[in-house]
Amino acid sequence: MKKIEDILNEYKNGKLSLIDAITCIKSINFFDMGFAKIDDDRKNRTGANEIVYCENKDADKVKKIFSYLYEQNGEVLGTRANELQFQKVKEVIPSATYDETSRILKVAKKKELKGHIIVMSAGTADIKVADEAYETATFLGSFVEKIYDVGVSGIHRLLAFEETLKKANVIICVAGMEGALASVVAGLVKVPVIACPTSVGYGSNFEGLSALLTMLNSCSNGVTCVNIDNGFGAGYVAHQINTLACK
Amino acid sequence: MKKIEDILNEYKNGKLSLIDAITCIKSINFFDMGFAKIDDDRKNRTGANEIVYCENKDADKVKKIFSYLYEQNGEVLGTRANELQFQKVKEVIPSATYDETSRILKVAKKKELKGHIIVMSAGTADIKVADEAYETATFLGSFVEKIYDVGVSGIHRLLAFEETLKKANVIICVAGMEGALASVVAGLVKVPVIACPTSVGYGSNFEGLSALLTMLNSCSNGVTCVNIDNGFGAGYVAHQINTLACK
Amino acid sequence: MKKIEDILNEYKNGKLSLIDAITCIKSINFFDMGFAKIDDDRKNRTGANEIVYCENKDADKVKKIFSYLYEQNGEVLGTRANELQFQKVKEVIPSATYDETSRILKVAKKKELKGHIIVMSAGTADIKVADEAYETATFLGSFVEKIYDVGVSGIHRLLAFEETLKKANVIICVAGMEGALASVVAGLVKVPVIACPTSVGYGSNFEGLSALLTMLNSCSNGVTCVNIDNGFGAGYVAHQINTLACK
Amino acid sequence: MKKIEDILNEYKNGKLSLIDAITCIKSINFFDMGFAKIDDDRKNRTGANEIVYCENKDADKVKKIFSYLYEQNGEVLGTRANELQFQKVKEVIPSATYDETSRILKVAKKKELKGHIIVMSAGTADIKVADEAYETATFLGSFVEKIYDVGVSGIHRLLAFEETLKKANVIICVAGMEGALASVVAGLVKVPVIACPTSVGYGSNFEGLSALLTMLNSCSNGVTCVNIDNGFGAGYVAHQINTLACK
Amino acid sequence: MKKIEDILNEYKNGKLSLIDAITCIKSINFFDMGFAKIDDDRKNRTGANEIVYCENKDADKVKKIFSYLYEQNGEVLGTRANELQFQKVKEVIPSATYDETSRILKVAKKKELKGHIIVMSAGTADIKVADEAYETATFLGSFVEKIYDVGVSGIHRLLAFEETLKKANVIICVAGMEGALASVVAGLVKVPVIACPTSVGYGSNFEGLSALLTMLNSCSNGVTCVNIDNGFGAGYVAHQINTLACK
Amino acid sequence: MKKIEDILNEYKNGKLSLIDAITCIKSINFFDMGFAKIDDDRKNRTGANEIVYCENKDADKVKKIFSYLYEQNGEVLGTRANELQFQKVKEVIPSATYDETSRILKVAKKKELKGHIIVMSAGTADIKVADEAYETATFLGSFVEKIYDVGVSGIHRLLAFEETLKKANVIICVAGMEGALASVVAGLVKVPVIACPTSVGYGSNFEGLSALLTMLNSCSNGVTCVNIDNGFGAGYVAHQINTLACK
Amino acid sequence: MKKIEDILNEYKNGKLSLIDAITCIKSINFFDMGFAKIDDDRKNRTGANEIVYCENKDADKVKKIFSYLYEQNGEVLGTRANELQFQKVKEVIPSATYDETSRILKVAKKKELKGHIIVMSAGTADIKVADEAYETATFLGSFVEKIYDVGVSGIHRLLAFEETLKKANVIICVAGMEGALASVVAGLVKVPVIACPTSVGYGSNFEGLSALLTMLNSCSNGVTCVNIDNGFGAGYVAHQINTLACK
Amino acid sequence: MKKIEDILNEYKNGKLSLIDAITCIKSINFFDMGFAKIDDDRKNRTGANEIVYCENKDADKVKKIFSYLYEQNGEVLGTRANELQFQKVKEVIPSATYDETSRILKVAKKKELKGHIIVMSAGTADIKVADEAYETATFLGSFVEKIYDVGVSGIHRLLAFEETLKKANVIICVAGMEGALASVVAGLVKVPVIACPTSVGYGSNFEGLSALLTMLNSCSNGVTCVNIDNGFGAGYVAHQINTLACK
Repeated sequence: MKKIEDILNEYKNGKLSLIDAITCIKSINFFDMGFAKIDDDRKNRTGANEIVYCENKDADKVKKIFSYLYEQNGEVLGTRANELQFQKVKEVIPSATYDETSRILKVAKKKELKGHIIVMSAGTADIKVADEAYETATFLGSFVEKIYDVGVSGIHRLLAFEETLKKANVIICVAGMEGALASVVAGLVKVPVIACPTSVGYGSNFEGLSALLTMLNSCSNGVTCVNIDNGFGAGYVAHQINTLACK
Repeated sequence: MKKIEDILNEYKNGKLSLIDAITCIKSINFFDMGFAKIDDDRKNRTGANEIVYCENKDADKVKKIFSYLYEQNGEVLGTRANELQFQKVKEVIPSATYDETSRILKVAKKKELKGHIIVMSAGTADIKVADEAYETATFLGSFVEKIYDVGVSGIHRLLAFEETLKKANVIICVAGMEGALASVVAGLVKVPVIACPTSVGYGSNFEGLSALLTMLNSCSNGVTCVNIDNGFGAGYVAHQINTLACK
Repeated sequence: MKKIEDILNEYKNGKLSLIDAITCIKSINFFDMGFAKIDDDRKNRTGANEIVYCENKDADKVKKIFSYLYEQNGEVLGTRANELQFQKVKEVIPSATYDETSRILKVAKKKELKGHIIVMSAGTADIKVADEAYETATFLGSFVEKIYDVGVSGIHRLLAFEETLKKANVIICVAGMEGALASVVAGLVKVPVIACPTSVGYGSNFEGLSALLTMLNSCSNGVTCVNIDNGFGAGYVAHQINTLACK
Repeated sequence: MKKIEDILNEYKNGKLSLIDAITCIKSINFFDMGFAKIDDDRKNRTGANEIVYCENKDADKVKKIFSYLYEQNGEVLGTRANELQFQKVKEVIPSATYDETSRILKVAKKKELKGHIIVMSAGTADIKVADEAYETATFLGSFVEKIYDVGVSGIHRLLAFEETLKKANVIICVAGMEGALASVVAGLVKVPVIACPTSVGYGSNFEGLSALLTMLNSCSNGVTCVNIDNGFGAGYVAHQINTLACK
Repeated sequence: MKKIEDILNEYKNGKLSLIDAITCIKSINFFDMGFAKIDDDRKNRTGANEIVYCENKDADKVKKIFSYLYEQNGEVLGTRANELQFQKVKEVIPSATYDETSRILKVAKKKELKGHIIVMSAGTADIKVADEAYETATFLGSFVEKIYDVGVSGIHRLLAFEETLKKANVIICVAGMEGALASVVAGLVKVPVIACPTSVGYGSNFEGLSALLTMLNSCSNGVTCVNIDNGFGAGYVAHQINTLACK
Repeated sequence: MKKIEDILNEYKNGKLSLIDAITCIKSINFFDMGFAKIDDDRKNRTGANEIVYCENKDADKVKKIFSYLYEQNGEVLGTRANELQFQKVKEVIPSATYDETSRILKVAKKKELKGHIIVMSAGTADIKVADEAYETATFLGSFVEKIYDVGVSGIHRLLAFEETLKKANVIICVAGMEGALASVVAGLVKVPVIACPTSVGYGSNFEGLSALLTMLNSCSNGVTCVNIDNGFGAGYVAHQINTLACK
Repeated sequence: MKKIEDILNEYKNGKLSLIDAITCIKSINFFDMGFAKIDDDRKNRTGANEIVYCENKDADKVKKIFSYLYEQNGEVLGTRANELQFQKVKEVIPSATYDETSRILKVAKKKELKGHIIVMSAGTADIKVADEAYETATFLGSFVEKIYDVGVSGIHRLLAFEETLKKANVIICVAGMEGALASVVAGLVKVPVIACPTSVGYGSNFEGLSALLTMLNSCSNGVTCVNIDNGFGAGYVAHQINTLACK
Repeated sequence: MKKIEDILNEYKNGKLSLIDAITCIKSINFFDMGFAKIDDDRKNRTGANEIVYCENKDADKVKKIFSYLYEQNGEVLGTRANELQFQKVKEVIPSATYDETSRILKVAKKKELKGHIIVMSAGTADIKVADEAYETATFLGSFVEKIYDVGVSGIHRLLAFEETLKKANVIICVAGMEGALASVVAGLVKVPVIACPTSVGYGSNFEGLSALLTMLNSCSNGVTCVNIDNGFGAGYVAHQINTLACK
């Protein structure tokens, strides 16, 4: 893809007509597949290639998008994928892998993992979301450590990791039910805590609303929040922060 | 007031007609002031005299209700009172006192305080609710200890009281914002934790909803919840539990 | 497991190095199974061993957790279990039993049941939640009496048990729809009422929200609330209160 | 005002042109005051003249509407009025009266009160709403009896009126907090219960939502509900039912 | 069952001991089936026998309850029933019938239908709720007329029935989506309108909340509301009102 | 169907009796199929024939309604249809077609498409809603252009179409998740933007509430909103506006 | 302001350096006042100059913004203004006017009003919102007719205007309480209906939520919705549609 | 304050008794002022001293807390302060300053500002929240640049800063109404975007809920969210991230 400077120069040099220059300036950044427009410029702008949200997508379309992105970038990350989508993608990219817990479908290049992210889960039922965060940040190139099942009902379990927590550049706290984990952790560390509420719980949990509100209203400083069950989002932003710390 | 056995006997002995017996059986338990019906039988049934919820009540009516209850029982407890109501009540009961923080208006008999309740607050802004709980349980005859400003953002502050907590028969946790205090405390003790959410906070706190949901969804066992800002309710039930433990 | 006093003394006596003493102090209280961290210190702190919330857990993991806890404590309680989990657990603990209504999966030691808890249900559709409360408190060692189907639409049904209610140390009221049962009962007794809303009902019941709000806003004193359908939580705290009353 | 039959005949007889007949048919039922269109046909259709909702209305406009309606009907009922509106109306209708509790502003013809409505309130704080219901039904011509402060926390207070309740054609239950009154009453009587939730309470009462949901989800048959604090609506429909019973 | 007068007399005459008299007074009104307590006194108090809410009930228990009630009263009404429950009930009561649309399972005595109720539906998708209202009121002995599919998007369809509406003692308006039907109808008639919102619709309908709020906030006088999809409740109260009008 | 003028004249000429004239005036505009009342006058009043909302409707009834409408108008549009309904309709109207993505079932006359509507989708998961809008407006006679997958996360993709947008008379923006598309588009164009939120997303998306609130609160002028997932509604109103622009 | 074509040419001709050309392309469309960035290009893009939302803005800043915009365009429209802001603006623009009901502060050029918009209100309390719509559309150049106080509780009042409604290119329906007006009107006309809910009402109206949901869920085709109390938004989009119809 | 190593050694050396050592280990980290417990260890753990949330706090208590913290640390930051609290604090710390817009009350040491944070606001009404973020991050030692009034309704205003955005280590987006700013910005940059919703707006904005949901549901990667109007929280975490990037 061309950059705006190139287009301006080509126009100046007469290689492009006025109308072509305008059109070019406006369409330098995506590939139109008909049913989808792949944002080819995304890595340039945001540091990461387009990631495929597979939920509710036709397996054939997922396959086509994976093919295109794999060809362009040599690797692809898909979230909320299912078995059928995986089978379809494998037809064209045999090296693709799928993890049932995190529902991550990916073709990953080998890369050296940098920095240090910690992903914590309050309970064992939160693991599928925590694993989505783990897989995302790892794919993007961060080193991630897991500390699972350290909810606040047995606070000493959590405090046993107090020193470990100090090694991280950023900590992801995944918790359902009342979601108090992030508040306690943020009171122990110097680095940002990414809070990820889960829909684990019942009754007035209201599909994760309880944990979400807890995390937004944390009395501890340094907590920011992503959407309910959005392990991907937590992993993505943790990687961004970890990358800043590794510069 | 008569009991049902007495009425049955008076009827058998001919002291009461059939219709009078029926009427008596049905009206043995309240005093009708016109605008209010005082539940004279309440102490007999529930162990405590009627307590006056003063919010939005005309000062003159509060005065009349206090007079009647004072005459019957020698003491009265009023919650959510205001200065004007206090002034009116003092006209007839000079020994009445009023506390601005907890908004408790009372005339209290001297009594020996029994057992051990602990009331904790997460922050200093929660004190008005915590004090309402303190005043209520004390009025009813329980010994209450205060541990204020021990929110989870500095978990070591709270853990410093771990041994102290073990002395209580029941613990009241008053907290706003994300309300995580109750979960941590319940994980440390053998006794029931009464969680009282407060409306302290802002934004998506939604007037206390955040802390309420946190407390209802606690991952720790042994937590029950009262209404938002309902220090009175927390103090009342804590006294009931403390009384059971002192039997 | 060691206590902090022991570790201090071993350090003083040179049996532990400085760094080992610090590590020991911080990790004295759990067993790490990889996917879960069992809170071995819980009975010491809270009076009850860890109870297994089986919802959404892999049957194999439930089996492993049951094995470990059974070995440590000779008994285990699991809530929200299913038939498959039961079959898996039976492979290693043949004496395990499962109750379909309450979804309780347990291996229970024989014990003398103490005190007196009453669990009431408003309707027959609330029984599965009421039974979860019954099973929990019984497992923990309390004597529990059931009074089911006494909703307020036929208030005389409820009043017929007025004398019976006076025998309890604590009463659990399980109710869906409008959930008024707890308010009426709390007006009749001296002891705490644990209100447990259920999701029984339809339309603007909103999955139990209606009964929950009713119970939180009770005009009667002495009512505290647990989460919607949380019979386990109600049974647990009722047992705590009953235990205090039996001291 | 003309009826459609009259217009058809006048058209047939040539007294009205085709276009005039069409216009007449379409505009036979209101008086246009510019800022308001008075529904003159309402009594004909619904049995009651237009009633003035005074909230947020300019005192001068209330005065003009009262003048017009008084001239037409010899009486007027206004709800949610304030002192200033009352003063303005008195300038033109000296016999107007205003009740501060119910906020009813009215000019009423003398009339014989028929039938029997009972309006009950759970607490003394609900009286302002209960009085609005009382005033409305009385204005419309029903006989109304008040039974106030009979909330379910002292159920015997309420049961003492069990026989009295049987005299009514319809019962209005006004209650805030958890609003359980309507359910208990409906379980005792053969006639419809109009449930009117109030915004009395605090915390998770959410401005009356708690009582509203309780009433909509009543486990008792025969309960219908009006809007929060809508004593007027309850009184109006109770009068309709009472009128049917008096036919 | 005995009445309180009889018990008092038997006691006076020495036929009952004191303790037996007290017990009798308190238990005169229900039959305890173990899993359920049938409210035998309900017809005496409320004018209708207990009606069976079958949702989520075990088919065998429904069968037992139907058997008992059929024996006592010669007829039974069940709501929210399913095919399996019907098959079980038919084993013991061959004359039982089941209607799939309204989900009404009943054994009905022949009776003369009295008075006049109109049940209207806004759309064809609301018919299952409207039919539940129809079946309920008919079972209880009211004459009911159906006017279906007259939603406000074609207001003239509705106005064509303006004269018909005047024949009813009470009108039931069943509507989903925006639920405006009740407001328009109540502006046309003298009698009460029972508004029954349905969960028909999508998006921000929020399972019937939209129609419910519409009906509670009706700008027309004379509207009261039952729960979402509660055709039974609407039919029941309409029958009560119709009965009053037939006295 | 007759018009009111005709009826008046027939009455004047004695062709209609008084009572027949009144009845006629009131019933000139629908066809009663028993279970449904077809609004025959709708095209006359609103410019479009009745459109069939097929969700939850019995396939046989859909067939009957299609037959009637096809006979009257030579074409029919059905929304939210399913395969079974399609098969039934094809039995009587072999030319009927069904589109699985948009769930549109139709028999369409050939017509010249007029004007210019643009329908945009933020993501590929929003296409089913966008296609419902496309199909609706096309059926009604508008020319519609699709621009899909131009969400704001890659704003340049959207800006590339800035000139294209200027050709439209009205633009439909279909978006889930945070739904920001409409705000950005409305800031770029002179014509109305119809915003259609979708339920695409997860967690605190709350089934489309997030996108709905975004669109209602747009900081850009010229945005109006239809219900969540209501592509039909968006297409319908866009056609109305496009028609006005083509006059 | 320059257009992109001009900049490209100046760059080609050497009048602009490469870096200046890029900068120019990116900043061609606003004026930076420090505390605000005026969107000078807005009329070019959207057909209307920037309109000032005055709520919560400092009077001095409003004055400065008005001065700037007045100088540029010769007229300015401000919404949600207050008296103080008006006084400040008058200091620099003596011809500014302020309307207390609609809270519109404006300096308007004389212009010929085109087309035909109708703005309807359900009640008199909705007039302030309806007037905001009226003032907005009039300022922008549309002819607007008012039809106020025609709520559905007296449907004949509304039907009397059925012919009048047919003259409009677009209709604005402003309604609070249950907000049914838009549904009825949309069933009567061929043109788009812009529904504007108001916060008028009480109880479960929830500050306009009731009317908003009603309007979003309308069973009538052709309704789109703006935010609660957003008369400005309704007037703006109505003007856009009216303008299209006048082309 | 002592560290755990020191206490262990003092105990080993006999300087501390066993019980004193245990007590010391547990209370090494706060200063008890009676009404508050100052978390002296916080900077050690979290990198920043305790910051004072002044809302609803008594001016005298704020003064005492400021005095203590100033003495300990030589600087103090207070949020949500008011004029009276400022006056009181100035009595003891004359160098304290107060900013009315952000409501920040502070005594700040001179420090070199490091790194680069950008804080953006969508509108001018969001400035008070944006300024709170600005003041917080500046106090903590970060260099912060402001870009205000760049909401998405004029997307070109925002795009003009595309290059500037690339200089930041982290970007704070403050926006009310529909809050779309964060989604667009996150699509343009490589670094984390901290989204801070504000309560600016009206109607269905619901006090900031609209913007909050938008931000939680952002279709762009790299967005995390803080509570509504919580500029402080956004500034705090932005400083944490900026600090990591400066290491």
